[in-house]
Amino acid sequence: MSVNSLDLANRLQDINFPQKDEGLLPAIVQDAETKEVLMLAYANRESLQKTIETRTTWFWSRSRKALWNKGATSGNIQEIVDIRYDCDQDTLLFLVNPKGPACHTGENTCFYRSFFDGWPKQADDQGNVETPIASNMMG
Amino acid sequence: MSVNSLDLANRLQDINFPQKDEGLLPAIVQDAETKEVLMLAYANRESLQKTIETRTTWFWSRSRKALWNKGATSGNIQEIVDIRYDCDQDTLLFLVNPKGPACHTGENTCFYRSFFDGWPKQADDQGNVETPIASNMMG
Repeated sequence: MSVNSLDLANRLQDINFPQKDEGLLPAIVQDAETKEVLMLAYANRESLQKTIETRTTWFWSRSRKALWNKGATSGNIQEIVDIRYDCDQDTLLFLVNPKGPACHTGENTCFYRSFFDGWPKQADDQGNVETPIASNMMG
Repeated sequence: MSVNSLDLANRLQDINFPQKDEGLLPAIVQDAETKEVLMLAYANRESLQKTIETRTTWFWSRSRKALWNKGATSGNIQEIVDIRYDCDQDTLLFLVNPKGPACHTGENTCFYRSFFDGWPKQADDQGNVETPIASNMMG
């Protein structure tokens, strides 16, 4: 049985798609099982509707000015497990079951680099070598 | 020992802050331990620099047009564990150790609502009652 279109229309009204910014909202994609954040892309009303209807992630490509079904070419589709939205109703969170890497580089996540990768090690007042942030925060 | 300012300046150049959109990039905040996505806010170059220097999250408030140190008033600060950035270098991911709820509603995460909350249960062809998406995807 398909999603009731009246329910869908009502629920879509809860989301604050802006008048400006091409009607786009940020959509975070998170692996539903590992909880890894995979990517961020942009959704408009039509792409969200297609995401719900097809149960796979659809976005708006700001560079190509076109709707985009993630993985349609590569096969690395992202099956929708849940869709959440934030307190301001202006950011979406897609919980997905990914069928392959999210990133075009082949990495599992687009967030594969740390700001502190290769950061020179530093010594603290006691002469202990540490990274500038992580070591203080992880303890 | 403080973060080397030359290293910091070099690393900040890796991030593609836009000329338009007030120089803002989306910054996802994720709990470093539970992996829960807590919120999304917007960062500019100055807020990122303050995030690094103070080891707590700073953003740019688009409504108040001002820098904003998350939790400075409420006490619910977010200690930085790691900062990641995506393949396009235009989205930030802050991994944090939160000292309290991220959301102004008191919820732990701003993403406390599902698009399918209260969605009428539906029966499939075999008469099994199910939610429109989750039951098919979680199996």
